Amino acid sequence: MPTILFAAKSERWSTYEPHLRAALAENGLDHVHLTVEAAPGEVDYIIYAPNSGLTDFTPYTRLKAVLNLWAGVEDVVGNATLRVPLARMVDDGLTEGMVEYVTGHVLRHHLGMDTHIHGQDGLWRDDSTPPLARDRGVAVLGLGVLGAACAQALARLNFPTHGWSRSPKSIPGVICHHGVDGLENALRAAQIVVLLLPNTPETNSTLNSRTLGFLPKGAVIVNPGRGALVDDSALLAALDAGHIGHATLDTFRIEPLPADHRYWSHPHVTVTPHIASATRAASAARTLVRNIKRAEMGAPLYHLVDRGLGY
Amino acid sequence: MPTILFAAKSERWSTYEPHLRAALAENGLDHVHLTVEAAPGEVDYIIYAPNSGLTDFTPYTRLKAVLNLWAGVEDVVGNATLRVPLARMVDDGLTEGMVEYVTGHVLRHHLGMDTHIHGQDGLWRDDSTPPLARDRGVAVLGLGVLGAACAQALARLNFPTHGWSRSPKSIPGVICHHGVDGLENALRAAQIVVLLLPNTPETNSTLNSRTLGFLPKGAVIVNPGRGALVDDSALLAALDAGHIGHATLDTFRIEPLPADHRYWSHPHVTVTPHIASATRAASAARTLVRNIKRAEMGAPLYHLVDRGLGY
Repeated sequence: MPTILFAAKSERWSTYEPHLRAALAENGLDHVHLTVEAAPGEVDYIIYAPNSGLTDFTPYTRLKAVLNLWAGVEDVVGNATLRVPLARMVDDGLTEGMVEYVTGHVLRHHLGMDTHIHGQDGLWRDDSTPPLARDRGVAVLGLGVLGAACAQALARLNFPTHGWSRSPKSIPGVICHHGVDGLENALRAAQIVVLLLPNTPETNSTLNSRTLGFLPKGAVIVNPGRGALVDDSALLAALDAGHIGHATLDTFRIEPLPADHRYWSHPHVTVTPHIASATRAASAARTLVRNIKRAEMGAPLYHLVDRGLGY
Repeated sequence: MPTILFAAKSERWSTYEPHLRAALAENGLDHVHLTVEAAPGEVDYIIYAPNSGLTDFTPYTRLKAVLNLWAGVEDVVGNATLRVPLARMVDDGLTEGMVEYVTGHVLRHHLGMDTHIHGQDGLWRDDSTPPLARDRGVAVLGLGVLGAACAQALARLNFPTHGWSRSPKSIPGVICHHGVDGLENALRAAQIVVLLLPNTPETNSTLNSRTLGFLPKGAVIVNPGRGALVDDSALLAALDAGHIGHATLDTFRIEPLPADHRYWSHPHVTVTPHIASATRAASAARTLVRNIKRAEMGAPLYHLVDRGLGY
């Protein structure tokens, strides 16, 4: 009887336990032992939250795989004690939620909604018509599952959509760039740029004082990806100088973002509290159980992390 | 040589003249006489803004057709002196702009954006995850060109999308209702409802104290259609009672909305200044000229108004 250890904060367990048990039953895995406490030598799989406190995998001598509870693996991928396959969470619900956040905030900036949301003062501001989406270039940096889905959704809304990734990709309806020169070209074309790169040493501060300079004046940044993708000092300087028109940030180098951080008080920054990529427990539980079932059948895991690339 | 009278306020003429002349040239109609002043007996076509001041068509004895400069015809359709075909503006740019406004504001309410846009106070509000679009019913009342396009865009974003129209319609991906019972069913299914009905005596106050009661508690109204579709007192009462969660209104019975109107100051109302359906001069000019070319060739006009139905 395989044992699955659920290693995450206790509030996660109360959310996930019913969904995991239901998914196990649906998949004919009722006999599996799902627990939050087990002797390390008896554990076959760990459903893992990097902030769980578990950092030494050495005692888990029978371990077959670790299944990350969310998409970002930067806090576990470099763990030298982890010697078994590691899978990222790729959840339909997460992808759908991300597409909704990204399309919503891109349309918000495209339409200039904040002027009206803040301007309920009796003044009829009908003096400017925004351009149509077809006349507004946007870029998505990062073309993994989430980035590709967001780029396609933006393209379907008529935005001329540029995508950028490390290696060449091809996505219908999206103008794909790659490599160092590709980044400059994607940014030069974008009035709104969305960050959905993985967090690796190579992607750290992808937006910095040099690359922010490639963006046209007044460009808007939307970062639902990772806080470390942005050089915060460079972004604040570009906002203060008016080169960047607005930043809507959902992820930060330190979370929760400290209450005295300048992002909170900057008039051209909107902080959202890491809500763009909320994993939905029901669909995430089904994804985790399907992957464990695959491993039990001897098949390679879905969404395996490449430990060399870091994602 | 046909004569086209441009009857609209002078600022429209400065916007439209270059686009109209370019479109005439593109269509081989360089010889047409386009003017803002002509003896009525010499005018063949009128490009018409209902607020132009021209209300008596009797002297225009040679008139072949009137081409409305925008989509709403309620201020001209009942004009008894108008005895020639009347065409509505159906502009690709207008449709695209409307789809962008509607999807943007529906996503804004779906995601609860205002909480974050207003809440830049250092408090990390990550306690609630909104449902996915697939779990949020929306309804579009009115399935003309604009309503159908908006309903399809919302369905593509995964919202279970209900549509309602006077007569039965069929739109791929949209659950279509019609007639009196259909309205109740559409509203009962909708957490967000978008009004895109034409303004006719039958559609006046479509949302009133009775029909607002069909909506689930906390429902949101988005009205980029016509101000007269809503009974304003009933809506304000439903907002005050908390039955309606928010209203984003772009059209009003009196425009500009008077500065002392309660809509401006209500905490759960967002006023936008009739910007959702801005006609874009370049594409509108092409549409007008294509229709005049059709008339010159003896073909029936596109987008003819049915004077009996009123739209």
